[in-house]
Amino acid sequence: MDSYPFLKGHGTENDFVLLPDHDGTVHGELGAERVRALCDRRAGIGGDGVLRVIRTEQIDAGRGQPAEWFMDYRNADGSLSEMCGNGIRLFGRHLALDGLVDPAQPVPIGTRDGIKTLTFAGGRADGEITVDMGTPKVLEETEVSVVVAGVERRWPALHVDMGNPHAVAWVDDLSDVGPLHDAPVHDDAVYPDGVNVEFVVRRGPAHVAMRVHERGSGETRSCGTGACAVMVAAAFADDAARDTDYRIDLPGGSLRVSWTADDRVLMTGPAVLVARGSTDL
Amino acid sequence: MDSYPFLKGHGTENDFVLLPDHDGTVHGELGAERVRALCDRRAGIGGDGVLRVIRTEQIDAGRGQPAEWFMDYRNADGSLSEMCGNGIRLFGRHLALDGLVDPAQPVPIGTRDGIKTLTFAGGRADGEITVDMGTPKVLEETEVSVVVAGVERRWPALHVDMGNPHAVAWVDDLSDVGPLHDAPVHDDAVYPDGVNVEFVVRRGPAHVAMRVHERGSGETRSCGTGACAVMVAAAFADDAARDTDYRIDLPGGSLRVSWTADDRVLMTGPAVLVARGSTDL
Repeated sequence: MDSYPFLKGHGTENDFVLLPDHDGTVHGELGAERVRALCDRRAGIGGDGVLRVIRTEQIDAGRGQPAEWFMDYRNADGSLSEMCGNGIRLFGRHLALDGLVDPAQPVPIGTRDGIKTLTFAGGRADGEITVDMGTPKVLEETEVSVVVAGVERRWPALHVDMGNPHAVAWVDDLSDVGPLHDAPVHDDAVYPDGVNVEFVVRRGPAHVAMRVHERGSGETRSCGTGACAVMVAAAFADDAARDTDYRIDLPGGSLRVSWTADDRVLMTGPAVLVARGSTDL
Repeated sequence: MDSYPFLKGHGTENDFVLLPDHDGTVHGELGAERVRALCDRRAGIGGDGVLRVIRTEQIDAGRGQPAEWFMDYRNADGSLSEMCGNGIRLFGRHLALDGLVDPAQPVPIGTRDGIKTLTFAGGRADGEITVDMGTPKVLEETEVSVVVAGVERRWPALHVDMGNPHAVAWVDDLSDVGPLHDAPVHDDAVYPDGVNVEFVVRRGPAHVAMRVHERGSGETRSCGTGACAVMVAAAFADDAARDTDYRIDLPGGSLRVSWTADDRVLMTGPAVLVARGSTDL
């Protein structure tokens, strides 16, 4: 195969390979093998996933959605995923910087989870980007544990659903949690499909810091839905609930998360394109 | 700063960012901060190191060396390193594919460890590449240990010096060694500056497989000097010594290593360019 264009960038160090394929003619049915090759951090370009940039009308999953551009998102293992809160900001950054959308207006993006609307701070192509992450569900109290140096430690955790399952555990110190080489142990009855586990400490009023273990990926530098679940759990603990705004510090950077009066979670953060070029992977 | 060109590739999954800077005018004194930014696997392009492609006469470390091109090698942390056996093959691949050298002839490359000569299999720009890794020193028997699930395991090891220190330990099964999150424990009297530790199993006549823990980097997919140290230890164990040829399997691929009658170690292996483009990191 000839070489084809790519871009690379990240949102709070959740990183992605972007593949411009506006009419679907470059990649056709983008195969899992190519996605894995691109995301391989030693033999490929490296990334947590691939974001194909395609016109909504050119892909079955998008046809009929009221948006010009569709984010065809794949995990690093080649599997499909519906949405990614850090990835969609990077997707929007590329569209705005390359003149494919007007950042002065809200920008609808087609995804497998339906239309997501991006807003660009100050209407600028290079400003922070906000995405509506949907309505959270606060469910039951549960428990998680990790083994550090052969000793098991347990914490109570709040089950929050952001479209995917989370267990949010308050800890005294993020380093207590240890290196997180292995997945935290959870209650299979509560989380039959596994769970993303967030460990949280307070930093100040409406300001927390977290680490996250993503199911299937291990500890990561950032997780968008994880930051939203943490904000919801913090607001819940603070009896703040709706119409509040928190700063969430992650290993890869900071996000701001709002819970609106009409029960939506809005996430705002940076997105950085670092390279562009061509590859024949 | 404006954007500047880069290439990315790997040799047995030891991966590098190449920076063409033929006259030294793009990067001037290439700073450690830029090297770290480029090698960052989430916020940057990602790599085990940076290889600046510069004319020998344009850099103090190279001036006077009888070669047109100098490999200005930096580790991912920004520090200088003299040589890299996987990196120099990738460096040669770029020069040959981009028409900067003639692969039909031996190609001398300037490095901080002096001139290294590359030969291209079949005189082809896309064939395997051989590099002379110098003269080994077989030193004393020593011991290494690792802790797996709280239990310490010890192995005898051979101290081999390939310009840098190695401890080569024969094991029954590479998985016995465990996940290698932490550095193996070594004898500080033997290795006052730390050590690269190789664990080896036999696969067949003149054929072994290995894992490696590199000091400062953790377990890696490949280590060129480590593969050479393993070959020397295997030939030593086999009483084969000079004028022999081994296949060394690493997690990232296979290398062939020869120990010549005149006491040089030659390493032969692949090198793959996967992407090229521009960045403003």
